[in-house]
Amino acid sequence: MTFGTMAFAGSGLDRADQVRADPDRLAALMDWRARLLKLDGLDPVITPDGTLDWGTLADAAPDTELVFLGLLNGKGCFAEVSPDLLGSVAPANPRLWAAMSSLTPDELSTYGTARSLVDWHARHRFCARCGNPTVLAKGGWQRTCTNEVCKADHFPRVDPVTIMLVEHEGRLLLGRQPRFPPRRFSTLAGFVEPGESIEEAVAREVLEEAGVAVSKVSYIGSQPWPFPSSLMIGCHAEALDDVLTIDRTELDDADWFTRAEVEAAMQGQEDARFIAPPPQAIAHHLMKWWLAR
Amino acid sequence: MTFGTMAFAGSGLDRADQVRADPDRLAALMDWRARLLKLDGLDPVITPDGTLDWGTLADAAPDTELVFLGLLNGKGCFAEVSPDLLGSVAPANPRLWAAMSSLTPDELSTYGTARSLVDWHARHRFCARCGNPTVLAKGGWQRTCTNEVCKADHFPRVDPVTIMLVEHEGRLLLGRQPRFPPRRFSTLAGFVEPGESIEEAVAREVLEEAGVAVSKVSYIGSQPWPFPSSLMIGCHAEALDDVLTIDRTELDDADWFTRAEVEAAMQGQEDARFIAPPPQAIAHHLMKWWLAR
Repeated sequence: MTFGTMAFAGSGLDRADQVRADPDRLAALMDWRARLLKLDGLDPVITPDGTLDWGTLADAAPDTELVFLGLLNGKGCFAEVSPDLLGSVAPANPRLWAAMSSLTPDELSTYGTARSLVDWHARHRFCARCGNPTVLAKGGWQRTCTNEVCKADHFPRVDPVTIMLVEHEGRLLLGRQPRFPPRRFSTLAGFVEPGESIEEAVAREVLEEAGVAVSKVSYIGSQPWPFPSSLMIGCHAEALDDVLTIDRTELDDADWFTRAEVEAAMQGQEDARFIAPPPQAIAHHLMKWWLAR
Repeated sequence: MTFGTMAFAGSGLDRADQVRADPDRLAALMDWRARLLKLDGLDPVITPDGTLDWGTLADAAPDTELVFLGLLNGKGCFAEVSPDLLGSVAPANPRLWAAMSSLTPDELSTYGTARSLVDWHARHRFCARCGNPTVLAKGGWQRTCTNEVCKADHFPRVDPVTIMLVEHEGRLLLGRQPRFPPRRFSTLAGFVEPGESIEEAVAREVLEEAGVAVSKVSYIGSQPWPFPSSLMIGCHAEALDDVLTIDRTELDDADWFTRAEVEAAMQGQEDARFIAPPPQAIAHHLMKWWLAR
């Protein structure tokens, strides 16, 4: 089975990286034809037709920072790092998922890229090396330290995260994070740390969170996740046994689920043993892949 | 063919993440039994026997920052963020590869982890959000802002990089980066950006650098790369045609190579068309995988 396109992947925008480093080309794109993605804080502004709302650069605040998202039909597409966002942590918006539900996959991906980048600029105003202010560079794909002695370049961050189907004799290991809605269970996940491969990170996370050793780690598919900027790396692994030792600081609960139980949850049956993750999440697709193979 | 263990992966250290968040357990490990990995700047110190050199915490400077690498035989293993490194960019050491050549895979991985972490601490002294100083937290797996209003947490960075075998009718696409030694060719590579999947990043990089569209991107294997802290994600892709448009700002050259040419280079033949990447690099193993299948 092939692993389909995930939510937040598949933008039709041409990232046009050669434009980023060319101040003349970038300036030439910043005219009356340029499109500005409208954002409310970090959230998308949705038109009455249910699409992303785009304005022009005239809608941006004066002297604001603009991020070059890429080209669409020859026009430059930008997003604004709103002065209101600077240095802040955007509060979670409970209506965000409803707002995104009408977007096409292409729009969702463009929005996700913009959200990750704008959020990064809002929270990276200063040089981590010397503490001085930084300024936006290369169309927003870099920030540069203003201290003449330091001049360090900083790049938008992407955090690789492993997320895994752990299987033992036909049953699947799923867990509940404390922040999950009631009855939700999902695949275990965790950040890749410096000095480990994807396969090592999978094995370490499963051992840490559930006390289970795994073997035969294999890759299934990936997804960009813009909260704030993760790269979800979906894998499958086989557990060597089914005795769980749950790390209660990380997980509320974890358990093994049969094929029938996972099927019932994925079908949204009311009497299912748990509620499955939503289709926007790679965990949903990993579970679908597991049922289909 | 399975993809073997890469250089810089496979450390025998138990990362013991539950210790990091437990100040009492961490303090209890920092006694006379604790081991301190000796570093010369960011480079390893090698014993006359060709192994990593370890000392005790008494060898560290007073009030220095110590990173908890993990447990080995019940002993805490640490590395020092030398005051000499703070805020600096370590110069490349041409003798580094020779120094590392005698290390076992396990040692090389432990050293790589230490190098990535120590380097991160040396270059992340200040809060990117507010510009105030940060302090080491959670045994070095976090830094926290000292500004009482901000208190932002920062985590060691891992940058995902795609690196790919691009194939067309039995020939392999290889390129030369300007920094390569003479006659070296290797697989194309590039950082994954916010808002794209691994598969999209592969396709974008090949199109940007060589002007070739690809399909059927598949994952092969991964490697941590501690210069400074990348996660190399090795893939295979099929080119839709073989007409190259080389981005000369990124690559000195790129071309298609036959199986026989890749084989000659991997065998180190003197009259080979190019010099293959060294066995420490995932590119070497990708090419070996390609020849073997």
